[in-house]
Amino acid sequence: MSSKLAILVHGGAGPHRADDDAEAAKRGCLLAARAGHSVLSRGGSALDAVEAATRVLEDDPVFNAGIGSALTRDGRAELDASVMDGATLSAGSVACVSCFQNPITLARLVMERTAHVMLVGAGAEAFGREQGLRVIANDVLVTEKARLDLARHHRSNGTVGAVAVDALGHVAAATSTGGTTGKLPGRVGDSPLIGCGTYADDSSAAVSCTGLGEAIIRVTLARHAADLVGGGLDGFEAARQAVRALERARGEAGLILVTPRGQVAWAFSTERMARAWVDSRGEGSGFGADGV
Amino acid sequence: MSSKLAILVHGGAGPHRADDDAEAAKRGCLLAARAGHSVLSRGGSALDAVEAATRVLEDDPVFNAGIGSALTRDGRAELDASVMDGATLSAGSVACVSCFQNPITLARLVMERTAHVMLVGAGAEAFGREQGLRVIANDVLVTEKARLDLARHHRSNGTVGAVAVDALGHVAAATSTGGTTGKLPGRVGDSPLIGCGTYADDSSAAVSCTGLGEAIIRVTLARHAADLVGGGLDGFEAARQAVRALERARGEAGLILVTPRGQVAWAFSTERMARAWVDSRGEGSGFGADGV
Repeated sequence: MSSKLAILVHGGAGPHRADDDAEAAKRGCLLAARAGHSVLSRGGSALDAVEAATRVLEDDPVFNAGIGSALTRDGRAELDASVMDGATLSAGSVACVSCFQNPITLARLVMERTAHVMLVGAGAEAFGREQGLRVIANDVLVTEKARLDLARHHRSNGTVGAVAVDALGHVAAATSTGGTTGKLPGRVGDSPLIGCGTYADDSSAAVSCTGLGEAIIRVTLARHAADLVGGGLDGFEAARQAVRALERARGEAGLILVTPRGQVAWAFSTERMARAWVDSRGEGSGFGADGV
Repeated sequence: MSSKLAILVHGGAGPHRADDDAEAAKRGCLLAARAGHSVLSRGGSALDAVEAATRVLEDDPVFNAGIGSALTRDGRAELDASVMDGATLSAGSVACVSCFQNPITLARLVMERTAHVMLVGAGAEAFGREQGLRVIANDVLVTEKARLDLARHHRSNGTVGAVAVDALGHVAAATSTGGTTGKLPGRVGDSPLIGCGTYADDSSAAVSCTGLGEAIIRVTLARHAADLVGGGLDGFEAARQAVRALERARGEAGLILVTPRGQVAWAFSTERMARAWVDSRGEGSGFGADGV
């Protein structure tokens, strides 16, 4: 039964940039995938695994999530994240939080310790304080690279996410981001929206998306990809069809998914999407269209 | 071609309450439907019609949206709203705004005057001020009934929404709410989430949902209902099947939908859902399971 254990993470989809460090992105993704897989190997749940993997990515300044997040027009980091448990359809989400390093953990606390799915802004931050999460200065999240990106109007590509299946065949998905460089304060993208950036259902698949958030929202991309798997499509074919649906919404994106049977799959219409996985056949990583 | 003009609004789904005023709710819904239909009759767009209808419902203290909104644990009104244009899949959304009477209009401004879909909290309010929306004190939104509901832990049922189809066969949907009584500050329900509380696509249907927001989010109810229409189901059958899908998410809800061909349809698993419509056959309204 444990042969189906699998985890797949992404480090964001977007256009190639001159300053892309493909090796750093692949290495960071692989470390996150291994952290998640280690949870699964010890008998941990898919939910625990995607949270653990996403925390590694949030802590890595290479990615646009947690430390290293893209900055608002005003030069601040405002973070969004969500998590969903395919076994129960339970979900948790936060948006526009600026004083925690790991919003994915705050999202999970919303799921497990409130009657709600989503908290935003000051209310979400007050809840995090009540729960004893360590409060940090916004500056801790801000890297020199993020400041330069804002000054140069460079788009950020590094939203992160993870999907996993555990020994019981339960799937889970998590997504975390700093959003788009130069966004209006208060802007919420697809990452914290259930059905858009994140979806998980044991009867279909767990999905995490990345790319132009506004387009992903318009086609509720994560739910759409899960439905295609639920309808019987192979994981890769479902991922490709879902990404093609984005064309109607005038945007490019990528997604990763895992099925309850342990298949990992991905697709992207952008030039690159950093990704790494560990499954029954071993581990691997990729960046561009090179596949592996 | 104009024979297909149709608009359908809801005033919220929930359990019967001893203090239900069914007549006031039906009358309020009918006034809103007429306001929207008047826009359509003059050649206005479905988008204009659902905004106009939703504003009437927000202004009516009978409903849990705009004036009369349910209050947070702290006794404040924090409003959520979203709107979607089925012709273009463009969407706009706001959550956790507390100083405007008509959040649906703010949501439309987000759609039309930013590169974003969703703004929340202080950022959304700053944007609204920039756009010249009239700023009001939070107290203006707070009714005596809402204060009593909070004191007595009564659940609020009055989320509002509208769906319409115009002479060109374009559909649009809008949803607006004060959320649930006693919610944590910062809580966001399904109403402002595209695919959950609101969805519109000319290739399927326009949908607005109401009920237990957390459950609606878990099954992305609005998108699910639209997909069922897109798959060929009759509007009422699609509405019923979608509402049944809620059972997996441990919640009750209702929804309204309109198809590009001008069919209006609804379903609810709650005891009642106030609703009213104007279509090619005339107008009508309902409250409980009495049908019309």
